[in-house]
Amino acid sequence: MPITSSLAKSSPAATPSGLNEARGCMQVLYSAVRSETLKRASPLSAEDQCLQSMPDASPTKWHLAHTSWFFEAMLLRPYLPGYRPFDERYFYLFNSYYDALGARLARAERGLISRPSLDEVHAYRRRIDNDMAQLMEQSDASLWQRICPLIMLGLNHEQQHQELLLTDIVHALWRNPLRPAYLAPADQSPLPKGHAREPRWMDFPGGLAPIGHEAGGEDLFAFDNETPRHTVLLQPYRLCDRLLTCGEYAEFIDDGGYAQPRFWLSDGWAMVQQQGWRAPIYWSRPDGAREPEDWRVYGLNGSLPLAASEPVTNLSFYEAAAYAEWAGARLPTEFEWEAAAADPRIDQACGHAWQWTRSSYDPYPGFRPTPGATGEYNGKFMVGQMVLRGSSLATPSGHARTTYRNFFPPAARWQFAGVRLAKDGKS
Amino acid sequence: MPITSSLAKSSPAATPSGLNEARGCMQVLYSAVRSETLKRASPLSAEDQCLQSMPDASPTKWHLAHTSWFFEAMLLRPYLPGYRPFDERYFYLFNSYYDALGARLARAERGLISRPSLDEVHAYRRRIDNDMAQLMEQSDASLWQRICPLIMLGLNHEQQHQELLLTDIVHALWRNPLRPAYLAPADQSPLPKGHAREPRWMDFPGGLAPIGHEAGGEDLFAFDNETPRHTVLLQPYRLCDRLLTCGEYAEFIDDGGYAQPRFWLSDGWAMVQQQGWRAPIYWSRPDGAREPEDWRVYGLNGSLPLAASEPVTNLSFYEAAAYAEWAGARLPTEFEWEAAAADPRIDQACGHAWQWTRSSYDPYPGFRPTPGATGEYNGKFMVGQMVLRGSSLATPSGHARTTYRNFFPPAARWQFAGVRLAKDGKS
Amino acid sequence: MPITSSLAKSSPAATPSGLNEARGCMQVLYSAVRSETLKRASPLSAEDQCLQSMPDASPTKWHLAHTSWFFEAMLLRPYLPGYRPFDERYFYLFNSYYDALGARLARAERGLISRPSLDEVHAYRRRIDNDMAQLMEQSDASLWQRICPLIMLGLNHEQQHQELLLTDIVHALWRNPLRPAYLAPADQSPLPKGHAREPRWMDFPGGLAPIGHEAGGEDLFAFDNETPRHTVLLQPYRLCDRLLTCGEYAEFIDDGGYAQPRFWLSDGWAMVQQQGWRAPIYWSRPDGAREPEDWRVYGLNGSLPLAASEPVTNLSFYEAAAYAEWAGARLPTEFEWEAAAADPRIDQACGHAWQWTRSSYDPYPGFRPTPGATGEYNGKFMVGQMVLRGSSLATPSGHARTTYRNFFPPAARWQFAGVRLAKDGKS
Amino acid sequence: MPITSSLAKSSPAATPSGLNEARGCMQVLYSAVRSETLKRASPLSAEDQCLQSMPDASPTKWHLAHTSWFFEAMLLRPYLPGYRPFDERYFYLFNSYYDALGARLARAERGLISRPSLDEVHAYRRRIDNDMAQLMEQSDASLWQRICPLIMLGLNHEQQHQELLLTDIVHALWRNPLRPAYLAPADQSPLPKGHAREPRWMDFPGGLAPIGHEAGGEDLFAFDNETPRHTVLLQPYRLCDRLLTCGEYAEFIDDGGYAQPRFWLSDGWAMVQQQGWRAPIYWSRPDGAREPEDWRVYGLNGSLPLAASEPVTNLSFYEAAAYAEWAGARLPTEFEWEAAAADPRIDQACGHAWQWTRSSYDPYPGFRPTPGATGEYNGKFMVGQMVLRGSSLATPSGHARTTYRNFFPPAARWQFAGVRLAKDGKS
Repeated sequence: MPITSSLAKSSPAATPSGLNEARGCMQVLYSAVRSETLKRASPLSAEDQCLQSMPDASPTKWHLAHTSWFFEAMLLRPYLPGYRPFDERYFYLFNSYYDALGARLARAERGLISRPSLDEVHAYRRRIDNDMAQLMEQSDASLWQRICPLIMLGLNHEQQHQELLLTDIVHALWRNPLRPAYLAPADQSPLPKGHAREPRWMDFPGGLAPIGHEAGGEDLFAFDNETPRHTVLLQPYRLCDRLLTCGEYAEFIDDGGYAQPRFWLSDGWAMVQQQGWRAPIYWSRPDGAREPEDWRVYGLNGSLPLAASEPVTNLSFYEAAAYAEWAGARLPTEFEWEAAAADPRIDQACGHAWQWTRSSYDPYPGFRPTPGATGEYNGKFMVGQMVLRGSSLATPSGHARTTYRNFFPPAARWQFAGVRLAKDGKS
Repeated sequence: MPITSSLAKSSPAATPSGLNEARGCMQVLYSAVRSETLKRASPLSAEDQCLQSMPDASPTKWHLAHTSWFFEAMLLRPYLPGYRPFDERYFYLFNSYYDALGARLARAERGLISRPSLDEVHAYRRRIDNDMAQLMEQSDASLWQRICPLIMLGLNHEQQHQELLLTDIVHALWRNPLRPAYLAPADQSPLPKGHAREPRWMDFPGGLAPIGHEAGGEDLFAFDNETPRHTVLLQPYRLCDRLLTCGEYAEFIDDGGYAQPRFWLSDGWAMVQQQGWRAPIYWSRPDGAREPEDWRVYGLNGSLPLAASEPVTNLSFYEAAAYAEWAGARLPTEFEWEAAAADPRIDQACGHAWQWTRSSYDPYPGFRPTPGATGEYNGKFMVGQMVLRGSSLATPSGHARTTYRNFFPPAARWQFAGVRLAKDGKS
Repeated sequence: MPITSSLAKSSPAATPSGLNEARGCMQVLYSAVRSETLKRASPLSAEDQCLQSMPDASPTKWHLAHTSWFFEAMLLRPYLPGYRPFDERYFYLFNSYYDALGARLARAERGLISRPSLDEVHAYRRRIDNDMAQLMEQSDASLWQRICPLIMLGLNHEQQHQELLLTDIVHALWRNPLRPAYLAPADQSPLPKGHAREPRWMDFPGGLAPIGHEAGGEDLFAFDNETPRHTVLLQPYRLCDRLLTCGEYAEFIDDGGYAQPRFWLSDGWAMVQQQGWRAPIYWSRPDGAREPEDWRVYGLNGSLPLAASEPVTNLSFYEAAAYAEWAGARLPTEFEWEAAAADPRIDQACGHAWQWTRSSYDPYPGFRPTPGATGEYNGKFMVGQMVLRGSSLATPSGHARTTYRNFFPPAARWQFAGVRLAKDGKS
Repeated sequence: MPITSSLAKSSPAATPSGLNEARGCMQVLYSAVRSETLKRASPLSAEDQCLQSMPDASPTKWHLAHTSWFFEAMLLRPYLPGYRPFDERYFYLFNSYYDALGARLARAERGLISRPSLDEVHAYRRRIDNDMAQLMEQSDASLWQRICPLIMLGLNHEQQHQELLLTDIVHALWRNPLRPAYLAPADQSPLPKGHAREPRWMDFPGGLAPIGHEAGGEDLFAFDNETPRHTVLLQPYRLCDRLLTCGEYAEFIDDGGYAQPRFWLSDGWAMVQQQGWRAPIYWSRPDGAREPEDWRVYGLNGSLPLAASEPVTNLSFYEAAAYAEWAGARLPTEFEWEAAAADPRIDQACGHAWQWTRSSYDPYPGFRPTPGATGEYNGKFMVGQMVLRGSSLATPSGHARTTYRNFFPPAARWQFAGVRLAKDGKS
């Protein structure tokens, strides 16, 4: 994303022109990110955008409003002199989980917000955009130093919600028995046929590896959970050079993968039994059908025949780990993944499917959350979740990087999350 | 409703003109009822009409579709030659609870149906109306004999959903923290002030009383649960000549009514404790406020100051019975109510608030459900519910009658249900 | 029970010898009832007596203590001068549901009371018995008038718990995969074989019928819910002259009774689906077995082959009503049952199985609970329950009468509750 | 534990006398461990031993039986020729979670097992002990090689249940409103008074640290989750030289620790709100009391005044982490803990309270579960749990070691789990 490079190279503190350049770059970036959100919502009706299909997922309209609220709460209220809120009550409605910013609507109730209407939420977004433009315009070098990281955070935050907007609406539309598609397939081009090429195992020697975001490095922005950069000692390991495919996962199912506890972690097996898991959440076969080619898979383009060569997605960590066990392999740790991600032998590192790792989401040594309300962004979730690395087909362009730590609870199935297998290497 | 009188007096079987007259009356009635449903939905946006706030309540859009489905399922599919469904899948989506008519969408999932869109549901309604017009037009005297009672059932069914449409949307909008109004108050005329006149106790001697719908009587239509007409022996009793008011109910609250188990049935007291009931569902007072005039009451016109002289509504049976106990009175039985309803000394019998009775919803002696799918209309709910009599401000014009048996579970609070007190008489 | 006749005929107020006679009779009765409770507990170990298998059921030990607590709370504390409690904390532990008597252990926690030990509870019972003997001994005619009805209530209360003791322990032992028997079959005499005689339909003309307990009548004691005696108008009806048998119920199962919603009340069908009901709670067949003779039925004597000619028990109201619907009959109302109970043509009215009626448990006209804490005995449960009439094999001798109103929620399955069929008569 | 040293030094494979010596040592060890279990149960009545207060906790009697089942399932059935089970059904009743060994009683139902009686369970234990003696006696050197590690596993397994036996019964007796003590305080010696000495911060330089059990090292036995031994790179850190005390924790409470979300992980704060946490599970203060000295703490000796200088126990991970946040410190990682545990500057490493670490329970690099059913011992729980290090007052003598990895879900509060604080060091 060249604009972020320009932004990185600009010197707002040094000269007025540097400040102007930085402001200009940021305005371009801001507009690009904000319009992408609307673009993702555009195939959906106002009714669609009001749906909440489970407490973990939010209505599209709520995503539109909450991402605007973030700029209001973190930037406009603290830094724009004379700021007048669009609607005071939105501060309550569209707070997600920031305890420092007061009470908020319960998560499971977001689907009850038919009002404000979608039109009003669009008006809210426009007001926030105007006020943000004014804030950027007015800021001097000193203020810019303070707000620039927050704007970057707000934009990256919005990009995260762009992905959630898609995963959430796919879940909601899938709950509709008509199984409507978010977007009809663009053309009549046939789905990819046949199986993927054989995977290859790539050896990595282990040893000391730098992990985490490097301040002043290539990536202008990183979340606090990617810091501090530190060194980790790795054992030799092997990584599969491509992602696990739907066709491969279908073999696991047909070999009784969901019927044999020995492949599963204890909590995973409990889910299989309690929830009646028999296949990935969006897979279905007609009653009585038993062939791999009978599978249909629901996704952004509705229900389609299983494409055997495509990366499998929408797995929980439990399913990912059970597959690995069945295959005589394991999931990589997040450190193994990061140390190998830039290796040219590794395909599909980003842009296809998030990759569950065998690492719990623990803080890095020396981690401290950023001060203030933004400190609630990551740190307080560091328990009970697993790290995913890479990025998916739904991740906005420019958002991924090799140090990125995505995280979800191990039972979460509605993300575009798949598998890259690993094995111990020879020491 | 003069049209039903005309309908009652027409003789479709005897002469062609009688048949024509009957058809014409029915068409007028059909149009009037169907358009009232749309009128009630008209203040609501498509987003509003998609909301489901609890499993017991349905989205407005679902009411629009289900009432049409009823005509499709009971009349068009069985009786219109060459009938072609608008959409086969609607048969699954908009069945409410008719097991004889196959599988259906789970009740709690109705709020997930963003598609079909509201526009599509409107188109569905129009198709049903056209096809119903065709069916009525085409029917000969013999067919008319069969379909006429079913059309009447369909229209009365739709009227019930007209009331539910309002009670359900009030609940849904009340769940929105912005507390939007279904309909803003029509004018700036002040709310009624002051307290209601003192209630009077009217004596009734009891004795043998005919109960239930009289075939061939004044009311052209009745539900099967109002039959067979039979005689009941009543003890002497007294009825209050008006409904319980909000002001009177506020005294119960301020006397500790929700804090003392001795007024409550055991199941009611369990609800008070588990659900934290402190007042009727839609009543609220600011923290720390303790005066009766501090109450605000949410309803069709949003949140308004308590009108002390108005009938209290939105009580559960448990609250109604607890009030009566506190007041040294009791609720009337449904038979006491019916035997007195036409007495001119009794005010507010209909049109203000449904009146909880002390009668469980049991079948009348000799009751048999109507054969076929319509037999599921009433009979299968005859356990675990209490009878309400009268009708409410939300009941459509022409729908109420003195033999009408409404019923809800004793914990239901979202109906316009209030109290008429009774006492034992002197024998 | 001759002793109650003597008690009824004694004149404690008139003469000292009358008082002595009354005291003596009551002492005999008291001892008989109290020892029966211990007798019923005697086959059980201390471990068994501590079990609670669901919130609705109580441990045997708790029954032993609570029945003693009742005498303490209603008689000793108010009436025995200088009464010193055995243990103040028992007042909290062994209160069942009397709000007027203060806080109490939550119902679902009764199984956690390993202490007091069974030995301590036995000691508590002995202390209560001694103190009750002293109270009866000391009372003069005036006090006797007050305590005599309360002692009678306490003894009838204890008899109710004698039945619950059995139904509760059967449920608890059934939950043990070893399926131990409360009592091994007494001898090796074979179970009754073959089917019951054909049932006969007995006609009753209906008309005005006196219902409820008659003060001064044959039955010395009745609960307040059996009063006031009043007249009910009945339509002509028919009653089956014997109870429904296990063999007959097995036909319903094998005809798909649990698979077809049309036989079931709506709430009943919901239970069938949610709870996976396929047969009465205590019936089981080996996997794959499909013959009626494959059924085994668990009960007081453990798991035994189904005895086709025996009355079916442990049905819920929903199952009872579904059977009746399947059989083209119905359940009787409680009034039909009572009006016919003394008719010599009616077999098995008492002593075999409680008989579900089609009557909700509503108050009789003019019903008022007794004043004080004993008023919580019956009245506050008069919603959401169905009336059962007759009595069962587990009902203590002398406890049943034709006006007796037993009641349970319609889903309750752990009682010895069966079916007597009814039909409408010809008017 | 000298016996294990002898065992370690014996050479069963080399010489007959070596085998004899090994057998003898093991018999002594076996008897010592097995009798300790009975000793811990001995203060409890049969009724106490039947209690289950939550699904996570098991009845004492179940612990007695399950630990015997372990020897039966892992040793006697596979290795003792002609082994005849005491009762085939126990194999179902007393399996805990070994899927490879077939179906089992649901965890939450263990409290319903009044039969087998405690006496029968004692008899079962004796039979297992006799058969185990026979197995050890009969084994030749080759068999000994196979069974010796399994016996060691069985004994360490039993020691884990010895601790659980105590934590489970404390929870069960605490649920009894009488709050009976497992064991009355041994004497009248006063509780420790006053506050603990000031804690000191000990510096550790970090660097490469060996982690995990060393085969052939000092500890004869370790669980598979402590392997493989590997090297970890640590940053400099500081550890508190003693455990957190009750007095210190009381300051956190009185400073509003349970009222301010900013100290809590998100899932922890959700528990505080949903469960109404206001203090550690076993702490209570009379209504209105607000002083630290008003606290009473329930434990093995019943309810006692808070001893301010004693280590706090029975914290969840959430509470431990919230305290650390409040105190401006953090919890140590399990690697920091292990690397420092043998340092003489560190007090109370073992024998007082398990110490929550900031490490999720992930597998060590290269970890593989042991083959067969014993492989389910640890590996399948490696998700959703946090590691605890050290040992507690309830841990049996000889069971703890510095590489030991205990683990519980972050919300678990019924263990003797406390806190040792850590901080980042200076690099």
